Amino acid sequence: MGSKRFMLPVEEVDLTTVKYDQEVITAPRLTGFGLKLFVWICEAPLLGSLLVSYLKNKNKFTEKLRYTVIPERPMFRPEFPPQDPETGVITMEKDNTPTTRVQSALKCLPPYDPAYGWSADSSPFLYWKIRDFAHAYRSGSVTPSMVAEYVISGVEEFNNKNPPMPLLISFSAEDVRSQAEASTQRFKEGNPLSILDGVFMAIKDDIDCYPHPTKGATTWFHEVRPIKRDAVCVSRLRSCGVILIGKANMHELGLGTTGNNPNYGTTRNPHALERYTGGSSSGPAAIVAAGLCSAALGTDGGGSVRIPSSLCGVVGLKTTYGRTDMEGSLCDCGTVEIIGPIAATVEDVMLVYAAILGPSPSDEFILKPSIPCLPNLSSYNSSNDLASLRLGKYTEWFNDVYSTDISDRCDNVLSMLSKSHGCKTIEVVIPELHEMRTAHIVAIGSESACSLYPDYIAGNAAKLTHDTRTNLALFRGFSASDYVAAGRLRRRIMYYHMEMFKNVDILVTPTTGMTAPIIPPSSLQFGETNLEDTGYLMRFILAANLLGLPAITVPVGHDKQGLPIGLQLIGRPWGEATILRLASAVEELCLDSRKRPFTFYDVLKVK
Amino acid sequence: MGSKRFMLPVEEVDLTTVKYDQEVITAPRLTGFGLKLFVWICEAPLLGSLLVSYLKNKNKFTEKLRYTVIPERPMFRPEFPPQDPETGVITMEKDNTPTTRVQSALKCLPPYDPAYGWSADSSPFLYWKIRDFAHAYRSGSVTPSMVAEYVISGVEEFNNKNPPMPLLISFSAEDVRSQAEASTQRFKEGNPLSILDGVFMAIKDDIDCYPHPTKGATTWFHEVRPIKRDAVCVSRLRSCGVILIGKANMHELGLGTTGNNPNYGTTRNPHALERYTGGSSSGPAAIVAAGLCSAALGTDGGGSVRIPSSLCGVVGLKTTYGRTDMEGSLCDCGTVEIIGPIAATVEDVMLVYAAILGPSPSDEFILKPSIPCLPNLSSYNSSNDLASLRLGKYTEWFNDVYSTDISDRCDNVLSMLSKSHGCKTIEVVIPELHEMRTAHIVAIGSESACSLYPDYIAGNAAKLTHDTRTNLALFRGFSASDYVAAGRLRRRIMYYHMEMFKNVDILVTPTTGMTAPIIPPSSLQFGETNLEDTGYLMRFILAANLLGLPAITVPVGHDKQGLPIGLQLIGRPWGEATILRLASAVEELCLDSRKRPFTFYDVLKVK
Repeated sequence: MGSKRFMLPVEEVDLTTVKYDQEVITAPRLTGFGLKLFVWICEAPLLGSLLVSYLKNKNKFTEKLRYTVIPERPMFRPEFPPQDPETGVITMEKDNTPTTRVQSALKCLPPYDPAYGWSADSSPFLYWKIRDFAHAYRSGSVTPSMVAEYVISGVEEFNNKNPPMPLLISFSAEDVRSQAEASTQRFKEGNPLSILDGVFMAIKDDIDCYPHPTKGATTWFHEVRPIKRDAVCVSRLRSCGVILIGKANMHELGLGTTGNNPNYGTTRNPHALERYTGGSSSGPAAIVAAGLCSAALGTDGGGSVRIPSSLCGVVGLKTTYGRTDMEGSLCDCGTVEIIGPIAATVEDVMLVYAAILGPSPSDEFILKPSIPCLPNLSSYNSSNDLASLRLGKYTEWFNDVYSTDISDRCDNVLSMLSKSHGCKTIEVVIPELHEMRTAHIVAIGSESACSLYPDYIAGNAAKLTHDTRTNLALFRGFSASDYVAAGRLRRRIMYYHMEMFKNVDILVTPTTGMTAPIIPPSSLQFGETNLEDTGYLMRFILAANLLGLPAITVPVGHDKQGLPIGLQLIGRPWGEATILRLASAVEELCLDSRKRPFTFYDVLKVK
Repeated sequence: MGSKRFMLPVEEVDLTTVKYDQEVITAPRLTGFGLKLFVWICEAPLLGSLLVSYLKNKNKFTEKLRYTVIPERPMFRPEFPPQDPETGVITMEKDNTPTTRVQSALKCLPPYDPAYGWSADSSPFLYWKIRDFAHAYRSGSVTPSMVAEYVISGVEEFNNKNPPMPLLISFSAEDVRSQAEASTQRFKEGNPLSILDGVFMAIKDDIDCYPHPTKGATTWFHEVRPIKRDAVCVSRLRSCGVILIGKANMHELGLGTTGNNPNYGTTRNPHALERYTGGSSSGPAAIVAAGLCSAALGTDGGGSVRIPSSLCGVVGLKTTYGRTDMEGSLCDCGTVEIIGPIAATVEDVMLVYAAILGPSPSDEFILKPSIPCLPNLSSYNSSNDLASLRLGKYTEWFNDVYSTDISDRCDNVLSMLSKSHGCKTIEVVIPELHEMRTAHIVAIGSESACSLYPDYIAGNAAKLTHDTRTNLALFRGFSASDYVAAGRLRRRIMYYHMEMFKNVDILVTPTTGMTAPIIPPSSLQFGETNLEDTGYLMRFILAANLLGLPAITVPVGHDKQGLPIGLQLIGRPWGEATILRLASAVEELCLDSRKRPFTFYDVLKVK
């Protein structure tokens, strides 16, 4: 018999007495045989539920969700309170097409100067920005078909590397050539579709991209879920002329933060091949970091865009819940997940964001998204309008990282922002961070389990990796009333954040609590479960998912081992423009300290 | 290992091929020792989960929620698609007070004719309508304090009856007298608060009404949830001058449809003392039917206002989800439950509805309730605007009742509506009624279990009735992914109903599939579980709860045994005015065939 706890009504919580409380996770760190045994026990009828119960108790899930009277009514998915419109930004027209939206985004950029970008002989187009390609294509010196051959040979070289560097799960040279030819033809005729025409992009394997199968990096999911068409976001990119090179590797079904994948091999971090990329969008981040594509689409339900972007030293945007249409992605029933772009620069992230945005019709009605805005990046330096931005920092949380390299560098950026732009940093406190973690795992876990149940019961679960099966064993242990209780916690956490956003415009944290972790060799074949690293990687991630807030990670430097550090900016609901604007300023301030990742030719040379 | 099922996307379902499929429930019918044993097994650690699993499987919960790929994304609570405004109704001003809203409602009524109502010597004010009291108070011939004495002596007589007729769980003669004196004083000073001033009402025991404890008809819930103030709806009534006589009996925690209650005794049906009132708002419906109060407030999460209103021959309104504020009710975290009025006439239901309406601030923002409207009951007969109403009838479902007395009488009313007012009846089909039942039980069950879990774990569950414990054993067996899957079904069912509402204005059904069932004497002490009767009682109830639609039950006659039959009108989202308008017409058409229930003095004479 347990003892009953009471939470104070959220408005009565005294924020001045809130203490930061480090998280302690009790779970075995397992790879290889130990992991196999653990999964076997978890899935055993009686023993399994006892073990899962034990772990849920130990990690205080039971206490938080069942022993506690939570006075708030549940919030099942983000319900955004009314927001003032963003200031200092440019409103996009409603109901326009992806190509006209991209055109609007282009007008927000500073003038293009070819001297800083491409030159006709700087093959193989490494780290060309989107506008570099656009300029080259329009000047006639380069054609999409020429670039296609470099991309195809790059992919093939990666495929033959040792250790393997499996960036793509599905790829067809023929399909890439035919898209490139069509694009080349459009340029020949003087009718490119948009600034994105002829730009190469990869799509995470949990988003439909016809005719590639969608496997979610499993070995079998495409057999039970055949593809008939592009996902909505992908079809928007295609309508802009984007060349889709194939399906990028990922953590199986997105249920992990390292990118470990025994099915197709684990994608390696272009900055350090013995290390993880982070996940779950491991392939998309690594492809961009390696210079193979200008941009990629990922999904982010628990940091899956931001974590690998941070660990690979690129820019990743988690859009507001409901800003992008999830139709045609594996997670089309979730309440925490979105589709977002990954690119090497804020500018390119913004162009892709403009192309893909637009809610699904049912979200449009319920969530009432604000009209999307974009920052005017061509003028903010002169007008100095950044001075009005108030940045929130929860210092104890901010500093709760694996190495002070991370917090020191992120702090340093805040000082630069203050010095160069006059941004004020304001100390904030966010209570109930453990409850946030609990509510998030219940939401994302139950929603994933719901999608997978019919296959679980049909016997396909045994074809999943041990890592995924461990997660599913936990997720199956959540009861329906746990889900409702998690919704009550969610409303509390939303309240605390909205109170905070009365005083600050952007919440700033390190993106991750650690830089890229080492890949244990024993984990390559059977995977691994390591909740300690997961805790560090997801430490600052969850508010954006649980509450649906927009967030962006920008590379700001490297730790002593040369591994990238990311700074995360979390905005108000629908506030993409404001965080993009600040991200662009951060990027510019950090240009000096940023070194380029290994190029893919560099990667080929290593070892 | 099960076999995986696929549902067609909801837009692709061919409605012309849908077949009505009678429900078959597999569950033991238990009272007395059998029920005690059943609860003991259900609550046993291993055996219990095996038994619950078996019953869930048998009743196809597992198949519907886990074996099936449901293509729709979950809808966790009603999301109303945009609705055209109601026609032929009167718009109320936004943001006005309960008293001014009641004033607006009054203007919608036909002129008051004292000849049809009260006379100064027709004591003890039996079946006086609200306007009868209002007229008498204003004429000075009667004072609230005079009526209070009759009410108090009535309650006391009921308390001493054999068999017991426990209408109220909490009652204080002193409190009633003091409220009545204050009201009498206001009339003396010529300053009554509203037309409701001095009107006597009872409040269901799951809605806070200070200073009475809120027990939800348990023996202990008030100890763990002390009361500090009125529920929002109750405080609105109080601001209109309503005299609140106490807390009405109910099925324990609202988790049953008969009104059986071993804790305080089972309320008996004023029409037949050996029969149930229906539930869970047993006390509120019986109090009104017995003539002790003009009106009462109930809650309706699965028919709890409509079922007892139908079985007791009174009018009960289930408001649109979000139309009333649930703050201060036991079910303040649910997605299916509302507070609604019960009264002897449509006119009185409308006056009370006008007083209590107004969403909670968070619903206001998310659900965007339409401005409330009221029908103009003073003019519809002459203007004949009812002719434009299209009534939907799903004949096979309509006829799936325990006795054809019910369907015949309801059909008869449709014919009268056609003949007198020109209302057209249109045949409709609603697929997936079993799925609707499944989704509803998962929603209401999980939300109830969430509220009760802390006490369950603290050991208070053993103080609940066996009936409630049986339900909780089932509810605890729902997994979080079942809850998400139920949300997917919910979106499908919403789609079917909204498609139907393109062709019809009101869906018409019998309110219940059977009239008042007999109370098995063995059930009085330990309760009973009887899912077969529950199936009949809830057959037509659930769309209004699962989808949040407004619905009203009007008494339309009696079966061969003299038991009341109710007709249910289900409206479009926010369409209370339209169903109230039709309900008023139905009431008028049925006046001849309606006999009054036993008055409470009649009741005293029986046996």
